[in-house]
Amino acid sequence: SINTGRLMGRIQQLGTIGRDAEGRLARTACSDADKAGRDMLAGWITDAGLELAVDRIGNIFGLWKTAGNARHAPVLVGSHIDTVIDAGIFDGCYGVLAGLEVIQTLREAGFVPPRPIAVAAFTNEEGVRYAPDMMGSLVHAGGLPLEQALATVGTDGSILGAELERIGYAGTEEPGFLQPHAYIELHIEQGPILEREEISVGAVENLQGISWHRITIDGEANHAGTTPMSMRRDAGHAAAAISVFVHDRAAASTGGTVATVGCIRFEPNAINVIPSRATMTVDLRDPDATNLAAEEGKLAGYLETLSAQTGVTIATEQLARFDPVIFDAGIVACVEAAAAKRGLSTRRMTSGAGHDAQMMARITAAGMIFVPSRAGVSHNPGEFTEDAELAAGANVLLDVVMDRVNT
Amino acid sequence: SINTGRLMGRIQQLGTIGRDAEGRLARTACSDADKAGRDMLAGWITDAGLELAVDRIGNIFGLWKTAGNARHAPVLVGSHIDTVIDAGIFDGCYGVLAGLEVIQTLREAGFVPPRPIAVAAFTNEEGVRYAPDMMGSLVHAGGLPLEQALATVGTDGSILGAELERIGYAGTEEPGFLQPHAYIELHIEQGPILEREEISVGAVENLQGISWHRITIDGEANHAGTTPMSMRRDAGHAAAAISVFVHDRAAASTGGTVATVGCIRFEPNAINVIPSRATMTVDLRDPDATNLAAEEGKLAGYLETLSAQTGVTIATEQLARFDPVIFDAGIVACVEAAAAKRGLSTRRMTSGAGHDAQMMARITAAGMIFVPSRAGVSHNPGEFTEDAELAAGANVLLDVVMDRVNT
Ligand SMILES: NC(=O)NCCC(=O)O
Ligand SMILES: NC(=O)NCCC(=O)O
Repeated sequence: SINTGRLMGRIQQLGTIGRDAEGRLARTACSDADKAGRDMLAGWITDAGLELAVDRIGNIFGLWKTAGNARHAPVLVGSHIDTVIDAGIFDGCYGVLAGLEVIQTLREAGFVPPRPIAVAAFTNEEGVRYAPDMMGSLVHAGGLPLEQALATVGTDGSILGAELERIGYAGTEEPGFLQPHAYIELHIEQGPILEREEISVGAVENLQGISWHRITIDGEANHAGTTPMSMRRDAGHAAAAISVFVHDRAAASTGGTVATVGCIRFEPNAINVIPSRATMTVDLRDPDATNLAAEEGKLAGYLETLSAQTGVTIATEQLARFDPVIFDAGIVACVEAAAAKRGLSTRRMTSGAGHDAQMMARITAAGMIFVPSRAGVSHNPGEFTEDAELAAGANVLLDVVMDRVNT
Repeated sequence: SINTGRLMGRIQQLGTIGRDAEGRLARTACSDADKAGRDMLAGWITDAGLELAVDRIGNIFGLWKTAGNARHAPVLVGSHIDTVIDAGIFDGCYGVLAGLEVIQTLREAGFVPPRPIAVAAFTNEEGVRYAPDMMGSLVHAGGLPLEQALATVGTDGSILGAELERIGYAGTEEPGFLQPHAYIELHIEQGPILEREEISVGAVENLQGISWHRITIDGEANHAGTTPMSMRRDAGHAAAAISVFVHDRAAASTGGTVATVGCIRFEPNAINVIPSRATMTVDLRDPDATNLAAEEGKLAGYLETLSAQTGVTIATEQLARFDPVIFDAGIVACVEAAAAKRGLSTRRMTSGAGHDAQMMARITAAGMIFVPSRAGVSHNPGEFTEDAELAAGANVLLDVVMDRVNT
């Protein structure tokens, strides 16, 4: 079993990096805070005696290979250490640090792995500063050309490639240099199901589809007092109407559609000026590919109707589009078996969040292990999972890795 | 008649002050740009031989008094030179510069006024940086204590009094030091009525009520993918629902209710995070006091229902609240007569915008003169009125001032 104290200590320590004056955690991709977090992780990887490698999109790898196993494809574990804004400390970091812990535990136990084992921390999984999310693993899996990823413009106008250079994590390895035999990602659920059902371990069998849009609405600035309602082209009102439309459709859906407007901005943003421009994001998800496409179609249709009715111009940019993913049946079964052997309750489940495993599934057998999130809270500083639950998940990861190096 | 070339030249010249790199005009109250505009105006006032006075809320006055008339209450003309963000050049500035032009014309013509004549530029009429709007004239009229006005916190966190000190316009006169015999304000209509009806001069008989609110909604940040719709407390969605509610009520009103959400902000403002907090403004107006109060009641009721239904907390702060105002019947009739004598078509009308005249009406006989706005556009760089229309309005102001100094 893993060294619980060491794992918990590292999670807490990494969680101190990137806090602002009010104590809010934000280690968005390629920021100064991300650099500090990466430096800490790289130190731990080196201290553990692993070989440190960084690729051109900034993905960090810690490799444990021996003279005897170097010609075999490695089993890869990992996740990400970038965060959202005002984040919790478990999302992503848990998977990376548990992966490192598993490798250290196996080394210390004198285990002789028939394949290399490696841990990865992928760049920009959250997608908050640069879209799409899961960018590092997507590039690794060949789903996005490196040059296009490096040219991504952030919400703050920065260029990802320049920021990666600046923080010293534009590495030299070609993305995809490491083609794994299997990829296993341990993560907090970030949703309410395991806690509600009092189950310790989720064997993730699929992951819902994700569709991200940036919508830009152009209307006409005019005076809030003198302009009759019928003569307005109010970009702000159109944005609000879109927000209500996607929310109400999702809330009424009998399937599992969810819809979120996370970002909004008005111009000129003055109390007595009808907004001339509104920009907003729509995050639309559904476990069913057909449903997701249908919801996208409904949104597109609504935008056309709204534009025709109100006279505003609406432009849409797709920031991310990923179909639902089904994980490797062998790994799902292996997770279930490992949990059962340790006396942990388990269930199969769907991931509501996007994860690097979803990208790695394009090139290798991939799977995920979930542990409970208190009250289903994530992307929130209140994100919390008990040490015992975290340790249990890490031990299941250990068992799955040991199984997969032998498969 | 006034010197059209001089007036137009000054309007254009003042319109060059406060432009950003992209040429957008923003001279919000007490900003560096406002200082530059004030300096230009103060120079013209002094050059015209008027006595310059600045009061403690930063209102600027140019006084023309003679040994013979100094004991009489002056006729005051004026408006404001602060602007919204991405503004046009006529809103406010036209009234101030036409007032100055009228005084200069009368002096140059050797007119001997039985009363002093003065021009005023009131501080922070727009209310974009600091609420409420019409602040300088409101303080002048005794409707807001000076200390409270100086302590106002701006949208950028600045304090009005400190900014006024910084730009050198915290004057020494006590607000209200000048109690006028009458106040007349010339302004562009900012609405579509005069142009649509091909009328040159509006005799403004009343001004609608204004109710400004800042609404702060607190929900809970959570993951956009994993959080079921039924478990969300989405502050952003609540803001959108409020925006749609006020818009739809105003659009359906048979009276003249207008409603605008000009400002919005989400926290943390990240694409895959349900907003934990949303702040927004609501600008609600109606020419009828009972209707305005009824609309405010409907909004308050909706906020309660929404909060109960969605679990978000909603706090409202009233940023401005002004009942409808009826202008002095004598001045309205005088404007009509003056326009008619110059062969200009005229109509009585309601002001949709707030104006300093509305505050001055608390302490003196007040009235307004409107000229057409092309396509009813204002609070927009496309704001436009023909030189001939502007000159016609200024000549009506000249005639009304000459009438009022003799009344
Ligand atoms: N795990 C996680 O929060 N990923 C972020 C990508 C997303 O699902 O929006
Ligand atoms: N005239 C004018 O635009 N005033 C600003 C105050 C308001 O009506 O919002």
